[in-house]
Amino acid sequence: MPKILVISASPSSTSRTERLGELVAERLDTYAWHTDHLRVRTLPAAPLLGAQVGHPAVSAAVEQVAQAEGIVLATPTYKASFSGLLKTFLDLLPQFGFAGKAVLPLATGGSTAHVLALDYALRPVAHSLGARHVVQSFFLLDKHLDVSGGTLRVLPASSQGLDEVMEQFRMALPAPSRLPVAADERR
Amino acid sequence: MPKILVISASPSSTSRTERLGELVAERLDTYAWHTDHLRVRTLPAAPLLGAQVGHPAVSAAVEQVAQAEGIVLATPTYKASFSGLLKTFLDLLPQFGFAGKAVLPLATGGSTAHVLALDYALRPVAHSLGARHVVQSFFLLDKHLDVSGGTLRVLPASSQGLDEVMEQFRMALPAPSRLPVAADERR
Amino acid sequence: MPKILVISASPSSTSRTERLGELVAERLDTYAWHTDHLRVRTLPAAPLLGAQVGHPAVSAAVEQVAQAEGIVLATPTYKASFSGLLKTFLDLLPQFGFAGKAVLPLATGGSTAHVLALDYALRPVAHSLGARHVVQSFFLLDKHLDVSGGTLRVLPASSQGLDEVMEQFRMALPAPSRLPVAADERR
Amino acid sequence: MPKILVISASPSSTSRTERLGELVAERLDTYAWHTDHLRVRTLPAAPLLGAQVGHPAVSAAVEQVAQAEGIVLATPTYKASFSGLLKTFLDLLPQFGFAGKAVLPLATGGSTAHVLALDYALRPVAHSLGARHVVQSFFLLDKHLDVSGGTLRVLPASSQGLDEVMEQFRMALPAPSRLPVAADERR
Repeated sequence: MPKILVISASPSSTSRTERLGELVAERLDTYAWHTDHLRVRTLPAAPLLGAQVGHPAVSAAVEQVAQAEGIVLATPTYKASFSGLLKTFLDLLPQFGFAGKAVLPLATGGSTAHVLALDYALRPVAHSLGARHVVQSFFLLDKHLDVSGGTLRVLPASSQGLDEVMEQFRMALPAPSRLPVAADERR
Repeated sequence: MPKILVISASPSSTSRTERLGELVAERLDTYAWHTDHLRVRTLPAAPLLGAQVGHPAVSAAVEQVAQAEGIVLATPTYKASFSGLLKTFLDLLPQFGFAGKAVLPLATGGSTAHVLALDYALRPVAHSLGARHVVQSFFLLDKHLDVSGGTLRVLPASSQGLDEVMEQFRMALPAPSRLPVAADERR
Repeated sequence: MPKILVISASPSSTSRTERLGELVAERLDTYAWHTDHLRVRTLPAAPLLGAQVGHPAVSAAVEQVAQAEGIVLATPTYKASFSGLLKTFLDLLPQFGFAGKAVLPLATGGSTAHVLALDYALRPVAHSLGARHVVQSFFLLDKHLDVSGGTLRVLPASSQGLDEVMEQFRMALPAPSRLPVAADERR
Repeated sequence: MPKILVISASPSSTSRTERLGELVAERLDTYAWHTDHLRVRTLPAAPLLGAQVGHPAVSAAVEQVAQAEGIVLATPTYKASFSGLLKTFLDLLPQFGFAGKAVLPLATGGSTAHVLALDYALRPVAHSLGARHVVQSFFLLDKHLDVSGGTLRVLPASSQGLDEVMEQFRMALPAPSRLPVAADERR
């Protein structure tokens, strides 16, 4: 079964970014793909920062990327760019580690003033990794992400935009598996 | 005495990038500034990745930035951008952590094809941090950095360019201290 | 029949960029698409610079974009970015003038130091126009483009790379028409 | 007397961008510089688009840049970047046409979502031209620019920010002439 990997890269376990990753992974998993969610903050810090690609946990994460046909990148916006935590992980991948893959860039942030960080800062890096198709990116304002009930709810002001880029991402994945399947037929 | 902080951000202790940081710090220190060299890889990994700005070592590094009037950023080029290690540290700084400061961006890399990463990826981040003056950046090809003798030697093909941006950086620092001083008058 | 539009944007009628546009248009036209080549320099200058979208020649060019399912952008590299001539034309298009379309960004230039201008400067603009799929870009060194014989010849050092991005572009176009057809069946 | 050149680059004679250029030029002219305002749309279109640097009007504009110690760039925001009209003019300048100069980048636009276009798209081009010091950029929302009375008025929400970058620009100019002078002593 084709695989999707959601990579979320906030240093905080309670961040909107990580919960957004969770929500996107759950939604995509209702289709005919196996979807995993890699929270970069859960990787061991020293091997990650030290670029020790031979470390078992780091190596396993890099292999998850290699196996996936689709990659979702979910990052907070810091200093007008994507998170250093995300870049630290991308730096460990082989030169063309996204070759053949579809990529969906997502960001969260407090101000629309940083919307272009996705297209000007993260998109070129995804293409440097050889991505086959980086679909339209989407930036979600923090205030459109309601976490008051314990689980994330995307408010209407952002939900349609998110639906659209997720649909574009699905269409960018290999053809045979675009339809939802019954739960008992999966995996 | 005014202060300069060189921040090098390669994960490797034997990297050309770190040795370049060392060389630049030594040269600047012959002038009337106190120059320190922060190797980001020596910060404790978990607090750095976890954005624990209250951790003593992280806090001390952030304070070094606050005290400096000039900042040199020395980064390897990975995935058509600057290193995740550098961004991880910059992410910890206050929103306008470079306010009032002069900044010199330097990069090392294997191919001139990545020269523009400095101006398109790192420079906007430096300005997001409120830098007063980010001088012309400079990209050094790995093959122009000879480490065969144990210490770094910048080959002629790159040494003039490096000299020029260092001079521009000195001119961008506060005025009273632009001239070299005798060693016994320093600190 | 599906349509492709090659847009070349050098101010010079004898430029490598325009000849590259010509060559790419000819090659794509051997497949089951109708391919046109818009040389932006041939549009009337005053209406183009004045954003007079109602001018007949400008309006016709904008309509060519609207009708195309695939767009090739061929630009020289000036001042570390794509040509002002190209941007002047893109500025005239509707906000989402590339919606649903596949886009192939190509550049010519004298130095590999400007390779990243395509991904950092032109690609975000293509996505701002709502492009469905901007495939990997390709930068051709002037010295790999031999014009000594009157027609353009892409030297081996760049021909494989050009072939690859053209193939990716074809794969990004709508499915029914990916195969070459006999000349007498065309148009 | 030192010179400043304001370059505004909207295709429209009634644009907020051009009026902003006018206002900035007037304010700077109260100091000890001679300030001119170049409206790129007033240059002859065909020579401008055709890169005919020998044409008298184009040549005179290029010479104005050469003579200035400070350059203000005022552009509308189109397609997530600066205007093609501005780039068309910058493309005509010599390779290091901004060497030794201070530069202030300003943009107008309808949405804060495009704020980063200045730092990610225009700033690298200014540095490619060899600028000595590109100060902090500033983006003005159209709705903060009141033109109802015939002349431009910057509403309070943006006036402080504009004042600050103009002050930084003045400080980046050569030292002797930072103070206002009596009108009869000027020129």
